[in-house]
This record gives sequence, C-alpha cells and structure tokens, in this order.
Amino acid sequence: MRVSVVENILGANEQIAAANRELFSEKGVFAVNVMAGPGAGKTSLIERTIEAVREQVRIAVIDGDLASTIDADRIARLGIPAVQINTGGACHLDANMVRSALDQLPLGETDLLFLENVGNLVCPTGFALGANLKMMISSTAEGDDKPYKYPGMFSAVDVLVLNKVDLLPLLDFDVGYFRRGVEALNPDLAFFAVSCKTGEGIYAWTEWLLAERARRK
Amino acid sequence: MRVSVVENILGANEQIAAANRELFSEKGVFAVNVMAGPGAGKTSLIERTIEAVREQVRIAVIDGDLASTIDADRIARLGIPAVQINTGGACHLDANMVRSALDQLPLGETDLLFLENVGNLVCPTGFALGANLKMMISSTAEGDDKPYKYPGMFSAVDVLVLNKVDLLPLLDFDVGYFRRGVEALNPDLAFFAVSCKTGEGIYAWTEWLLAERARRK
Repeated sequence: MRVSVVENILGANEQIAAANRELFSEKGVFAVNVMAGPGAGKTSLIERTIEAVREQVRIAVIDGDLASTIDADRIARLGIPAVQINTGGACHLDANMVRSALDQLPLGETDLLFLENVGNLVCPTGFALGANLKMMISSTAEGDDKPYKYPGMFSAVDVLVLNKVDLLPLLDFDVGYFRRGVEALNPDLAFFAVSCKTGEGIYAWTEWLLAERARRK
Repeated sequence: MRVSVVENILGANEQIAAANRELFSEKGVFAVNVMAGPGAGKTSLIERTIEAVREQVRIAVIDGDLASTIDADRIARLGIPAVQINTGGACHLDANMVRSALDQLPLGETDLLFLENVGNLVCPTGFALGANLKMMISSTAEGDDKPYKYPGMFSAVDVLVLNKVDLLPLLDFDVGYFRRGVEALNPDLAFFAVSCKTGEGIYAWTEWLLAERARRK
C-alpha cells in the first residue's frame, strides 16, 4: 500500500514533466535543471552564464528555495525574467512547481531556461522537471570525496561544473581523486572547472552549453 | 489517506527515537546529532573535537552517508569506535538506522556519541534520532545567505558552528548579515566560529560542549 502511494506520486510527476518537456519543445526553449548542494554556486554560475551569452540567446530563470527571494532578485537585477518558487518545506523542485512558474515567464521569447533547484545533493534527482539537460555544480570547498558519498547525483547528470577553483591553493582537494570518482560513476559526463569569482573557465562552459543547445533541440 | 501514511512513519520514528534517548540516559551517553550541507566539515569538526577532548571523555561516532565508508574510516584511524551507516538512497538518518548501529558500539564505555547525519540542509530536521543535542555546521564557503534560504534547519538546532573561517579573507561573506539571519530565526542559539584546518576557535567550542554535556545529562 505504501509503495503504491509513492508510485502514484512519482507517476504524476513524470506525466507533468513530460508535458513541460513538450511545451519547451513547442516554444523552442532549451531548459536546464541546475542541481548542487547549498552554496556551491548555482546562482553565481547562472549570473556568469547570463553575462557571457545574453547577446546570443534570450534567457529566463526559475529559482527554487525553501524560503526567500534572494536568488530571483539577483537574476532580476540583471534585467532577466525570473520567477522564485518557495517550496516551503520541500527539499527539491518538482514538475508541477515548475509548470506553475512557467505561466509567469515569456516562454515564446525564451531560448534558454535555467531551473535552479533547491540546494540538495540527494532529493532533486528523484523528480524530473522536463528539462533538456541535467547539470550539477560541485564546489571545491565541499571536498574531493563527494562523488563517493553522493553517487546518485553524479550518475544522474549530463554535465558537471566544478566551481570555486580559485580556492584550490588553500584546500586539500585532490582533483585526480575527485575525477576518478566521477568517471567511475559516469564516464560520459562533460566536465568543466570554473571560478565564478574570477571568471576562469566560464568561456569553455558557455561555448559547450550553446553547442549542446544547438545539437539537442 | 496519504497524510495518515506519513503520520504513521513519523510516529514510528518518534517512538524509536524516544527509545534511543532512554538508552542514552541509562548508559550515561550524551548524543549529538550533527547536521550540515555536503562538505561543510562534519567529520573534520568531529576529528578536531576528538583530539581536543579524548583525554576527558570516551567518544564514539556513527557516520551516515548514502554510500562509502570514508567518514567512519577517518574516525577509526584515530582509534575511536565508529560505525558507518549507508542509507542507500535516503537523504537523512532516522532513529531506526541509529538503533541498529548502536548494537555495534560499546555504549557502556561511551560518554559522548556523535551521530553524523547525511549532508543535507533540509531533510534531517524532520527525523528525530533521540539525541541530547542538535547541532549544525555552516561553511563560510556556502555563502552568508543560508539562514534566509534554509530557515528550518537554523531554527531546529541548539548550536551552530560556522566552519572554514580561514577562508573568510577570500570570500564575499558578510558575518553580520549571516548572524542577523540566524538570530531572527533562533535567538537563543549558541554560536561558534572555527577553522578545522587551522584549529582556530576549536577550544571555545569543545569547552562549551563539555559544559553542556555536564549540564544536560
């Protein structure tokens, strides 16, 4: 009985995610589900990406957090359409939350849509949003053992961005150990090392993202 | 119907948590539920605390992670009894996981027990473990806006340790903004700023912990 309840919930989410995906396809929107632990730099990477590609594509952002409008306010300050979802207690976005937010965005004038998930390395992977691309951001400050401890997230995504590489000289972070852990889980994963603070590595990431959008849509 | 299923699960957890609490009381164990986002420094703070107080109290550790034995191995290398719980997919420890692990520890010879939760700033607050003290660790590298985005965790704990203060000169982290967010949620919270890397602040934290143990037990 309990299992069937859970199956119904996930089944409903999958259906709404499929409807979101269809809407994205119809409108020519390339949607990216951005996942990471708290404070790894999801909003910062979205800001850097906006700066880099806003002349080439029209961007919109949906920000998910338990509370506050901090992230959507940051994006709106750049003149980019942004909607904040407050999940209350929920530890992840789901397809229906995204669907509700889509009504408030000019989808017909959007080429690239970021769905910034709640900061959490576990729960978001269980809930499809209908995105075209699933990405995760790791922070060097989180330590090099994260692929070994959170294999589900590292296995579930198409691209991994390692942020805060400007801190590497101060940290005991073994990049080889980190990457071996990632490759064992997900050998085809695209990988970029960046610093949202200094801008290092951002160009390689945004060029790949634009190419991937052109290839997948 | 769905709500009643959830209530049953939480009810069962509360009952087992109460039994754990009773067992801790009977054995003279002071148990600490250690919560934080991924990579904030839970294991590092436990290691530093072991170094500082192992002459005064007998310590044991239960480490929760989705996968791997990395954390329990680190603790065991210090000669401290440690049990690793692998939750599989679960995003938090629960009282029954802890109970199962307790059988493998010498509780009669333990004064201080750390229950290191899964790295997650949302889900662990919903599941009591029977601990005497609930603590959370924030990392400066996560950013100063975390109290505003994850109010549930900051409201639920007795003590907050801000780790990685050695990185502050490199970060845009406003300690006043962070602390104002915390104080609005939880004005009675004990607060310590430390660096597990340099050892800064560790003495104040461990002195408080030992005093709190003496006061509460």
